[in-house]
Amino acid sequence: MPTWPHPESKSAALFERARRVLPGGISRGQTWIDPFPIYVREASGAEVTDVDGVTRIDFLNNFASLIHGHSHPEVVRAVAEALPRGSVYSMPNAVELDLAELLCERIASVEQVRFCNSGTEAVMLALKAARARTGRPRIAKVEGSYHGMYDYAEISLDASPANWGNRPTPVPFAHGTPSGVLADTVIIPFNDVETAEAMLREAGDSLAAILVDPAPAQVGMMPMSPAFAAMVRKVADDIGAVLVCDEVIALRIGYHGGQARVGLRPDLTTMAKIIGGGYPVGAIGGTREAMAVFSHEHGKPLNPTSGTFTSNPISMTAGLVTMRLLDEAAYDRLEAIGNRARAALGEVMRATGFPGQVTGMASMLHLHAHERTITDHRSAYHQPEEAARLRRIYRGLTDAGCMISPRGACFLSTVNTDAHIERLAAGLRGCIERMD
Amino acid sequence: MPTWPHPESKSAALFERARRVLPGGISRGQTWIDPFPIYVREASGAEVTDVDGVTRIDFLNNFASLIHGHSHPEVVRAVAEALPRGSVYSMPNAVELDLAELLCERIASVEQVRFCNSGTEAVMLALKAARARTGRPRIAKVEGSYHGMYDYAEISLDASPANWGNRPTPVPFAHGTPSGVLADTVIIPFNDVETAEAMLREAGDSLAAILVDPAPAQVGMMPMSPAFAAMVRKVADDIGAVLVCDEVIALRIGYHGGQARVGLRPDLTTMAKIIGGGYPVGAIGGTREAMAVFSHEHGKPLNPTSGTFTSNPISMTAGLVTMRLLDEAAYDRLEAIGNRARAALGEVMRATGFPGQVTGMASMLHLHAHERTITDHRSAYHQPEEAARLRRIYRGLTDAGCMISPRGACFLSTVNTDAHIERLAAGLRGCIERMD
Repeated sequence: MPTWPHPESKSAALFERARRVLPGGISRGQTWIDPFPIYVREASGAEVTDVDGVTRIDFLNNFASLIHGHSHPEVVRAVAEALPRGSVYSMPNAVELDLAELLCERIASVEQVRFCNSGTEAVMLALKAARARTGRPRIAKVEGSYHGMYDYAEISLDASPANWGNRPTPVPFAHGTPSGVLADTVIIPFNDVETAEAMLREAGDSLAAILVDPAPAQVGMMPMSPAFAAMVRKVADDIGAVLVCDEVIALRIGYHGGQARVGLRPDLTTMAKIIGGGYPVGAIGGTREAMAVFSHEHGKPLNPTSGTFTSNPISMTAGLVTMRLLDEAAYDRLEAIGNRARAALGEVMRATGFPGQVTGMASMLHLHAHERTITDHRSAYHQPEEAARLRRIYRGLTDAGCMISPRGACFLSTVNTDAHIERLAAGLRGCIERMD
Repeated sequence: MPTWPHPESKSAALFERARRVLPGGISRGQTWIDPFPIYVREASGAEVTDVDGVTRIDFLNNFASLIHGHSHPEVVRAVAEALPRGSVYSMPNAVELDLAELLCERIASVEQVRFCNSGTEAVMLALKAARARTGRPRIAKVEGSYHGMYDYAEISLDASPANWGNRPTPVPFAHGTPSGVLADTVIIPFNDVETAEAMLREAGDSLAAILVDPAPAQVGMMPMSPAFAAMVRKVADDIGAVLVCDEVIALRIGYHGGQARVGLRPDLTTMAKIIGGGYPVGAIGGTREAMAVFSHEHGKPLNPTSGTFTSNPISMTAGLVTMRLLDEAAYDRLEAIGNRARAALGEVMRATGFPGQVTGMASMLHLHAHERTITDHRSAYHQPEEAARLRRIYRGLTDAGCMISPRGACFLSTVNTDAHIERLAAGLRGCIERMD
């Protein structure tokens, strides 16, 4: 029976259908792999089985969104029980309160929460909240950092040597980005305290928000330095801007948030991914003062929001069960297995003489195909031949039954085991040996 | 046992909790009702039961998103069956193809589909797609029309006599809206062919997109006139802009889309609400040419999109079952019950001498508390005392066990019956009689 990527595999047949009704045959840019995607039949725990019957170990967990692997029995049970009571209402339900209370208890800077439906929406609404509070237009963000599809948040996402200039400068990501958006965006280098501070202070009172990620996945997955965390807080206070911490991914690195691990005290926090337990969700949290722009208590809110699917009982139920299971002991286990994975993969690179490195923290890790010291987007950036080598590793691991991201990222779950890590390390060794 | 709005009701107690952790105590602007929200315990078919045990008939169906009422047994069965196979993967699944094919078959202008997670995302991505295709910055939209929370799409949503000027002009909705956004938005009056055409031609080749709704729910729910539909198509062709039809709500008015009912032939169509069957969803559809900006087939897409929860198998499964049940006969039944509802409520207003009217088409209807001829946002606009009368009707109907929107909108489902309509009409009669 032919399997992916055989042209007679079932995935190939589905892709033929897909090409007719989806542009390029896909609905999500990140699912594209060459020569065509692998279609999933079912997934359980750490195992994903494709439509051709091949089972692989999942180290990607839908780009960081699954923290207990697939179809966790307690999540499935809770959702199955909730289903007959309805999936969405025009009135609120009590489950969102349980989840909001849990987030407020865990994250020191979060006193109140506003739910929405995705990480993209969370970042958009947080930036709009910052503008509403300050009456200012501009947003500062880190070069190369991913924060979803809102125009201002995606500027300079894929800045490259061809266009990034000397000091970071706003580089459009989508074609046709309005010049007004570029003018209202300030791009700062990650962890470069001196340059970033100068640029932020130069922007001064035009800035509504400074948007940062405690350990940006697309910027080498390095933790924010204590000095950078202190600087952005100090500058935000001095110039009167709102400090926004994007925890859409980073919440998986610490029980009290990625912000607690790097010593960041933001005004607003964006969340998504794991807090939905595998169901669509987004949220903005923050201090009572910063969140006040969402409130209707004194007339029309400064930043009105609504949303058809927002805080629907299914996403809230799955998220609540997931986050309750994700107690401090679970975070400790994730930390330990992340450390073992980084050590094991790093050891394979050393032993085989592969010119690469493994970065990341807690349950997040990132393979790189170069040995330069990584501090920010520019130093993490892969030259074309390095990127090609990383793609070969990705492809080799896929063939070896290990799913990571095409760019070399892994996001482990609580159901990943030492045996999985051994398999991943063996897979990597095999890829590298075949490369020579 | 005290029930809503009694201060000792269970809804009151939940709201006390909610006020601590949610700004204003809510997560969605549209769920706010005075003095506090009604919390749902469960919902089935046309009935919603609150936490105090009161059951009401649902004529709102979560702001148009449920077309077969709550917890339709076939949707519940299909989702329950899908659950153990996983709720979200980092690779595609086949169900999105079934749903994409169904949408392409039904809507003549839709040859390809790109999924996302909400109506807000769908509109944002469609406008970005139009910019990517044209390389132009500006967006034209109809005054008062609701298209989600993306800055450009929400301009002039609540324009009022205090700020709307003579000819429509961009009025910010959220505080702190950047001046660049206002400069890149052109506001046109609905169904006023002459004025709108002049404004669109004046904007000319600065326009990326003309965004319209075939029967905008917040603009009196009047259908687009054939002359207006023909004008926007002609102007879009002449100036080289992308015509975007927002069917997030309107898809419920016709098997071939709201666009077919009003004779509109758009380049791009946005969808959400009913196509998710009660689960979070969004989609952009369109001609192969207009959708090409999403494709990676010739290198980096002009408008790259991704999304953690996009085309997840749960939303796709629920949407597919829902849309298959929504066959042409179902649309006919919705049309018939909508007609009966408009007639019955109009008859109550006539019989009681209430100065109001009922507008809408198919399964959508809108109560108004004035008798002026409604053609657009300005003529639909309620003076404060009229708005207050509408709120009293809303409140009276809630007390009578009938759920409509606080602004007087109803979106019927296939499980609404003649008996429900009779109850709604009787409820309205009771409200009006108590008002005198």
